[in-house]
Amino acid sequence: MPTYRAPVEDTLFLLFDVLGYERHANLPGFADAGRETVEAILAEAARLCERTLLPTNQAGDLAGCALGPDGSVKTPEGFRDAYRAFAEGGWIGLSAAPEHGGQGLPHLLTSVVNEYASSANMAFAMYPGLTQGAIAALTLHGSEEQKRTYLPRMVSGEWTGTMNLTEPHCGTDLGLIRTRATPAGDGSYRITGSKIFISSGEHDLTENIVHLVLARVDGAPAGTKGISLFVAPKRLVNPDGSLGARNGISCGSIERKMGIHGNATCVMNYDGAAAWLVGEENRGLAAMFTMMNEARLGVGVQGLSQSEVAYQNAAAYAKERLQGRALTGAKEPSRPADPIIVHPDVRRTLLSIKAFNEAARALILWTALKGDVARVSEDEREKREGDDHMSLMTPVIKGVITDVGFDNAVMAQQMFGGHGYIAEWGMEQFVRDARIAMIYEGANGVQAMDLVGRKLPRDGGRAVMAFFKEVDGFLADNAEDGALKPFTGPLRRAREDLQKATMWFMANAMGKPDNAGAGATDYMHLFGLVGLGYMWGRIAKAAVAKRAEGNGVAERMDAKLVAGRFFMERTLPETATRLARIAAGADTVMALPADAF
Amino acid sequence: MPTYRAPVEDTLFLLFDVLGYERHANLPGFADAGRETVEAILAEAARLCERTLLPTNQAGDLAGCALGPDGSVKTPEGFRDAYRAFAEGGWIGLSAAPEHGGQGLPHLLTSVVNEYASSANMAFAMYPGLTQGAIAALTLHGSEEQKRTYLPRMVSGEWTGTMNLTEPHCGTDLGLIRTRATPAGDGSYRITGSKIFISSGEHDLTENIVHLVLARVDGAPAGTKGISLFVAPKRLVNPDGSLGARNGISCGSIERKMGIHGNATCVMNYDGAAAWLVGEENRGLAAMFTMMNEARLGVGVQGLSQSEVAYQNAAAYAKERLQGRALTGAKEPSRPADPIIVHPDVRRTLLSIKAFNEAARALILWTALKGDVARVSEDEREKREGDDHMSLMTPVIKGVITDVGFDNAVMAQQMFGGHGYIAEWGMEQFVRDARIAMIYEGANGVQAMDLVGRKLPRDGGRAVMAFFKEVDGFLADNAEDGALKPFTGPLRRAREDLQKATMWFMANAMGKPDNAGAGATDYMHLFGLVGLGYMWGRIAKAAVAKRAEGNGVAERMDAKLVAGRFFMERTLPETATRLARIAAGADTVMALPADAF
Repeated sequence: MPTYRAPVEDTLFLLFDVLGYERHANLPGFADAGRETVEAILAEAARLCERTLLPTNQAGDLAGCALGPDGSVKTPEGFRDAYRAFAEGGWIGLSAAPEHGGQGLPHLLTSVVNEYASSANMAFAMYPGLTQGAIAALTLHGSEEQKRTYLPRMVSGEWTGTMNLTEPHCGTDLGLIRTRATPAGDGSYRITGSKIFISSGEHDLTENIVHLVLARVDGAPAGTKGISLFVAPKRLVNPDGSLGARNGISCGSIERKMGIHGNATCVMNYDGAAAWLVGEENRGLAAMFTMMNEARLGVGVQGLSQSEVAYQNAAAYAKERLQGRALTGAKEPSRPADPIIVHPDVRRTLLSIKAFNEAARALILWTALKGDVARVSEDEREKREGDDHMSLMTPVIKGVITDVGFDNAVMAQQMFGGHGYIAEWGMEQFVRDARIAMIYEGANGVQAMDLVGRKLPRDGGRAVMAFFKEVDGFLADNAEDGALKPFTGPLRRAREDLQKATMWFMANAMGKPDNAGAGATDYMHLFGLVGLGYMWGRIAKAAVAKRAEGNGVAERMDAKLVAGRFFMERTLPETATRLARIAAGADTVMALPADAF
Repeated sequence: MPTYRAPVEDTLFLLFDVLGYERHANLPGFADAGRETVEAILAEAARLCERTLLPTNQAGDLAGCALGPDGSVKTPEGFRDAYRAFAEGGWIGLSAAPEHGGQGLPHLLTSVVNEYASSANMAFAMYPGLTQGAIAALTLHGSEEQKRTYLPRMVSGEWTGTMNLTEPHCGTDLGLIRTRATPAGDGSYRITGSKIFISSGEHDLTENIVHLVLARVDGAPAGTKGISLFVAPKRLVNPDGSLGARNGISCGSIERKMGIHGNATCVMNYDGAAAWLVGEENRGLAAMFTMMNEARLGVGVQGLSQSEVAYQNAAAYAKERLQGRALTGAKEPSRPADPIIVHPDVRRTLLSIKAFNEAARALILWTALKGDVARVSEDEREKREGDDHMSLMTPVIKGVITDVGFDNAVMAQQMFGGHGYIAEWGMEQFVRDARIAMIYEGANGVQAMDLVGRKLPRDGGRAVMAFFKEVDGFLADNAEDGALKPFTGPLRRAREDLQKATMWFMANAMGKPDNAGAGATDYMHLFGLVGLGYMWGRIAKAAVAKRAEGNGVAERMDAKLVAGRFFMERTLPETATRLARIAAGADTVMALPADAF
């Protein structure tokens, strides 16, 4: 059975040594969570994930969810107990507002906990994870009554939440939504229609489920401008807060799918279900979009989570599995063979994953920190910069970390040879689970178009220019630092490739948008490489400084510097290929008639 | 349910217009299979695969194989009928020797049929596929009596065959094999031990199964020099050819695994099983190696097969699925949305797969053709060149085409959005099935080491020099051809990268083998890119010539030229990154102590 140890030490190093968490102590939330508190929280989260969630992962994959004849869904054995522990530990509302029962701590810390929880059991972590998304939506857009009715019981974990967007004929293109909402005359609506791919849509973890639903009010304009957001509970809530009758909402079927078997993916049928408008009529998409950055960041975290747990197991296996001899002569001649970690190709594989994971974690935490600043700072400029950063980096994190996280899970599986293909060893589950993160919350091709078509040009390119400025500042500040040369040199070259690609779009894509579309995915990955390379620059700087402190951290810091050099030498040069593809433009891509495919 | 249409037209174009199949008409086998015969054979194979095998694929994945309490294995419903049709059509023995009931046709054609069969149902195609491997081993190394006893009934499909190599503690490193063979005094042996990961090890398709088993004769030298090859039938064969008692061979369990559910992956227990030595004692590994090139080529074919069937379904879906509008304005304004094939990122994805598949098929057929020449030519030089080519290209084809074939299946799945993750649509099965090809018959890291450590330096680099010479000849011959400039220019640059990488190994890896190990996987992929780029050069030349013929082939040839340009513009530039990684050497890769992973 796979093992997992939450990377608490690495998280703390990133927060306190690399990202300057403590500089934000003036902000609400941060003030209540100094270093000691953060350490205690992460240690507790680690314990819960390692001891309570992890043991349910493989069994949950094997058992899956079961739909009863009455439309009820049974989650895998052990999920109910694990959910109770997770909810009672206060983890769902860690960053929710205190007035709704939350702890009001930085969202950054929820990101960390969600990484650990997803590594331990991704399918399970989706139940509280979707609830957190629904909490965010209601907090931002719900009426006071809606907040009072739903939020305390979602924050406590007594009820869970879902998002109902997709329909059979519309995924990315939500303008095609057909689900109807008819005013009931009493301020409520009756919703009718069918939604698909609803994660956590039905289950036996809680008595009630709070569905957020996109639907079209009778007579609304066509397309995306006629979509409204509703809240529709599985069981109606009486004025005194007790549970009333079942609403007209039922789970029609659950999907048989590649992975995340422990999470029920439901077809949800709305049959005149009572629902209440969240925010303004016909402004439902805008309401969804305000929480989309956070949701997409959360999916990026899932990509990292599978890459991390797959790495840990592959590294352990490589140190145990005896097979063949080192190219330079037997390393353990008294044993029948050397452990496979002596082989350069095995180390190359492991370092490739390790070097990605550490920088990806940094990029996520950096961005989550900016998100918190944007949310709670009272300094308008800092707030705007945080928001710019969050908007720009969200599609990069979602697209790149889930793409590469999946590739990494595949590489980690490969370390096991034939055993990696066998369910018992658990590695193939990581691959299957990681795969969904590339698809949901906007398929990665959509992320790439969001980056190139919306985030880059927004506000005259303000966000991307700020990013370049920050990287350039780092390069200038450290130009003379010999210890950082292996980092600043490659970062400078990669940054130049990114600038060339950006200029190429400015020159060629304005008048011919297909040039943007044809280069979007490569641009997203190029951007991700530079972002990760910049993170390695900052990690390396912090590691060099910390190494000088002594305190027995030298070995750990040396390992970081080696992983960082590996990234600079082996991963970052990919920017050149990405740039070449972008500059190839759209002509060949668009040349064929559809029939020729 | 997924569809599949065997790419017969493309195969014929490659064989007759690109690879000069007809120039080999003087060779045995080829003489009996001129163009008309080949066309008829491929059309018949296509029909069988599309109509009989394809319908069993998804159902077989869902049902899987079942182990009975008596150790019997039930294959999925429909497999028995499909197997009967496949055997009765003579497909197993298409290239087997006529004296054993085979048709004696070029192995090249078996490669083609296996591509089609694997696209239609990979798990199924492994039953006859492994039989073909066992036939090849017995043909090369079996005694006359063994050939008489087993071959006719394997060629006819009455019995199937298996390969028993792996044990729990030994996969790549066969020197660790523990299974024992004790002489019985009558010329036979008694085998005791346990083998794992035995594909097709037990099933209900035939009455008998012929196991080829690696074991160590009592008192044999340790390591790889003490391993012998045996034949051990599931049911003993009486002198008159009738079936006798059950042998001491049983299936202990079958694996629950990521994919190829329709093929039983068995733990095979040998409990004093009667077995007969194949070839010489202690020469078992050498005997296995002589057939390994062919087996590995076959796995490369599987990689292509999943890439092809996944592509076909993704292309069809992209033409049907309505979602969003073209960046340049609605293409089908009368419909609620445009088909997603209008989007450049969708076309980029599809072209990336298409451009790979067509060149990969060419590389496989070219190599299979060389393999036939090596096998049957009486011209010593031609024979040697064929063998050189086959040896050099086998690890490249196995490693690169299965790696990229898997990536392509993932990309094709991505085209379906959420539907790609749902079993019903069939795309996720292609991904799961394709995954095994990167692992078995030597994990791809082992292929890379085989290429760099053995195939490159062999005979003073004769094979790789011949490859460079051929590519250079093509470049020189076509230097002035304007229509081929988009192909020759990029191919020349990629070839230079390959040469630099080869020189780097010569300069840096002889004295420090870790430099070879650390660069091996990137070198394998770099080699593959140049091989595929060269194939595109030859395909383009043939397409330009054929285009001039008219005959209504212009559109098809134009599509090839576009796909080829895409490969040159977007895929081939990856050689630069591969070279940079190789030249980074082993220092960073080997710097960390094992505990730091």
